[in-house]
Amino acid sequence: MTKQISFNLFEMNTVGHISHGLWVHPSNTRHQFNDLDFWIAEAKLLEEGLFDSVFLADVIGTYDGYRAGPETALREAVQIPSNDPLLVIPAMASVTSKLGFAATFSTTYEPPFAFARRASTLDHLTKGRFGWNIVTSYLPNAARNFSLDDEVAHDDRYAIAEEYLDVLYKLWEGSWDDDAVVRDRDNHVYTDPSKVRYINHVGEHYKVAGPHLSEPSLQRTPVLFQAGSSARGKAFAARHAEGVFVGGTTLESYAKNIADIRQLAEENGRGRDHVKTFASAVIVVDKDRESALAKAEEYKRLSRAEGYLAHAGGGGIDLAAYPKDALIADILAAENRAGRDNSPENRRYAPGATVGEALERLTNFDQSAFYVAGSPTEVADAIENWVATTDLDGFNLRQFLTPGSAEDFIEYVIPELQRRGLYRTAYGESTLRERLFGAGQQRLFDEHPGARYRGGAHLNDAALPNDAAQDAAAAELGERAS
Amino acid sequence: MTKQISFNLFEMNTVGHISHGLWVHPSNTRHQFNDLDFWIAEAKLLEEGLFDSVFLADVIGTYDGYRAGPETALREAVQIPSNDPLLVIPAMASVTSKLGFAATFSTTYEPPFAFARRASTLDHLTKGRFGWNIVTSYLPNAARNFSLDDEVAHDDRYAIAEEYLDVLYKLWEGSWDDDAVVRDRDNHVYTDPSKVRYINHVGEHYKVAGPHLSEPSLQRTPVLFQAGSSARGKAFAARHAEGVFVGGTTLESYAKNIADIRQLAEENGRGRDHVKTFASAVIVVDKDRESALAKAEEYKRLSRAEGYLAHAGGGGIDLAAYPKDALIADILAAENRAGRDNSPENRRYAPGATVGEALERLTNFDQSAFYVAGSPTEVADAIENWVATTDLDGFNLRQFLTPGSAEDFIEYVIPELQRRGLYRTAYGESTLRERLFGAGQQRLFDEHPGARYRGGAHLNDAALPNDAAQDAAAAELGERAS
Repeated sequence: MTKQISFNLFEMNTVGHISHGLWVHPSNTRHQFNDLDFWIAEAKLLEEGLFDSVFLADVIGTYDGYRAGPETALREAVQIPSNDPLLVIPAMASVTSKLGFAATFSTTYEPPFAFARRASTLDHLTKGRFGWNIVTSYLPNAARNFSLDDEVAHDDRYAIAEEYLDVLYKLWEGSWDDDAVVRDRDNHVYTDPSKVRYINHVGEHYKVAGPHLSEPSLQRTPVLFQAGSSARGKAFAARHAEGVFVGGTTLESYAKNIADIRQLAEENGRGRDHVKTFASAVIVVDKDRESALAKAEEYKRLSRAEGYLAHAGGGGIDLAAYPKDALIADILAAENRAGRDNSPENRRYAPGATVGEALERLTNFDQSAFYVAGSPTEVADAIENWVATTDLDGFNLRQFLTPGSAEDFIEYVIPELQRRGLYRTAYGESTLRERLFGAGQQRLFDEHPGARYRGGAHLNDAALPNDAAQDAAAAELGERAS
Repeated sequence: MTKQISFNLFEMNTVGHISHGLWVHPSNTRHQFNDLDFWIAEAKLLEEGLFDSVFLADVIGTYDGYRAGPETALREAVQIPSNDPLLVIPAMASVTSKLGFAATFSTTYEPPFAFARRASTLDHLTKGRFGWNIVTSYLPNAARNFSLDDEVAHDDRYAIAEEYLDVLYKLWEGSWDDDAVVRDRDNHVYTDPSKVRYINHVGEHYKVAGPHLSEPSLQRTPVLFQAGSSARGKAFAARHAEGVFVGGTTLESYAKNIADIRQLAEENGRGRDHVKTFASAVIVVDKDRESALAKAEEYKRLSRAEGYLAHAGGGGIDLAAYPKDALIADILAAENRAGRDNSPENRRYAPGATVGEALERLTNFDQSAFYVAGSPTEVADAIENWVATTDLDGFNLRQFLTPGSAEDFIEYVIPELQRRGLYRTAYGESTLRERLFGAGQQRLFDEHPGARYRGGAHLNDAALPNDAAQDAAAAELGERAS
């Protein structure tokens, strides 16, 4: 079976997202991220390259764990300065008609009613091209920016996230019927009031009356992405996510995690193929192997270990504060952080590893299971093998240089993947969900938990999902996966 | 003295903002508000017309007070469906270089840290063209969308707003120095960490650590608009606002209120001319008087009393539920709502009026003190007289039709105002604050309370302003104004 592979550009509204140190490269335009022109040029480039979407990461705090302060993150431009990710999408959408937009937003600190309307607004403005990367946040500094003394405990964040999603589904799916807006000029009826309703959500964390303020957009619920790597995170993803960023260290562990997610999705009453799986791809390509390896050497030379250490120290451990032979697992236990669910870009602590190994891994981009540097043929071979071995559906392409990394991929890799039938040669349908799941699938699958509120059904039921059931499922998966 | 008059287009990301019923007009494009093309076309038109800015109102709830439900608001499209106002700005900014953007956002329900970054992002993306209309919200349904049972009491909302502004000023003005971002490629220093700091705000309502995530934008603090009409609201405006929407019923009462605001600004240590004053202008113009009057008749014929009643009932009183000779003041007292501070578009209850008079006033757009229908000359005469009599600096132009009302104004009124030296013939500086206050004034005036945090000064002071002092000032103004 030949399946076409999805590619998103991995982005963030900041200078240094995950390739720390590279901002100094003379061809890198990252420092122009404050300008609309930067984003407009990128959108045009990606649509030219037939990318699935631009995938915008985000954090709402500073990485100030390393050396007990924000100095290194500031000096190395590690995700600071940074701007809001949602606000670049309308301008990028205005110069494209097919490119998707997935943006990160946390369920922990801001009220669901406001986010529901922002997401619906973006789905309207993009005509159904909006996706949401659901995170629960993990930076201690983020908590302190939102009136808390420290992070909400990991499992509590997921309980809040469950209720948050429940509120959003009610607003997006249940509050307005498809045919509510009638625009009957003769009778002066814009909306048929019998087809719009309050949601009257009352839960442990939120009370939300509704009705939703936005009329139904093409997708209603944006395409839902998530990256849980803990047992609880995986259970959440298997229940809600339509695109999952899978964790792993080897092709085999990715394959196992992907099989687990599909299995758990099925146990949640969803199709195995209702979840698309993604990972970060670290690709250095040029016209031939020699040029690509030289390019990779240049990227390594410009990489800044201090930047990576600040990044790692923000969400987890200050690796500089421990001896190199200390076990990560012991440090996590001592800091009572074993349950932390780090962000996709920060999931670097293999529990059996030593500090020295973790340092090696996080400061060297070639340690990824999805790293390749080589000629177009070699890169395409690697990608083909990754997908065949793991059952992955697609990748977030890491950028070393903007726009260089995307340009290289478009110039060298896409034509080779197209020759092999592994990459689209033209866009089909324009909504993001249809791109992932095929023509006609603008809306959530009927089996998705958000779909139960359609037509206003179940709005008065007790909150779902049942936490106990959720915890049991998570524990079961945890046993299988560990 | 001839001063040039500011004009903003009064807008909202919705079908029916304040001209209820007009959506049925065949040339009205309001029903296309979900589309980017609608906003892009409007931005181009307004920049062609040399408008100061587009001014986006907002509410975060539904008008469901009238007839005890949202049915009328839905049927008549009274500010529902509606979308987020901030998200149309980036696309409008991408096709303009001078037009300003002022958007409404409430201080009551969402955390200040997130809004601080969104505002900075917009000021970056627009290159200093962003303004913020500060509201504290007034719809009971809005409160119920944000986990509350009913509105926060009026004076408590202002206390929250004071602290909210204090947090924002610390983030916008105090957290980063102007020269913090150095981009020293040779030494791998993006930001000089010694020039960025935590704000460590600890107040009654918020704890916010910082640092701000965005680097300084051209204006830092967006241009601050506000529309307080209560004594407390006026005191707030005199302290914080750079553009004030003034209340009134006659030209004389406007003149008095404007003089009061300027006086109170001066008592707050600000210049009398550091506050620009605005009101809504209701203008129907055509090539000659006869055509304009015919147009006004058509607008009246299409106006829907039910829409206006739903609008009025959302924030205040269900006028349909009282006899026509009941006094508004008695109803307000009975409902314990005397302290309510309604939004600019909902300030329709003259306390001495009866229900019948209020009905008459709110369903008839020609009851405004700033209403004129006539030839270009007649309209320009009226505007000139309004400004001369009241000392107003500018107007928000009410739309009956989109794009018709703005097109009419550009075609018929602007050339006449230009001939009289009352309207610019070209844009000067491109930041919004410079447009209002002159070249070089990109930042807050030094006397503005936000300016005190520059360079990180005063971050550790006790919260300002002192509530008791604020209350005393408000009471004093209240006595003078009533």
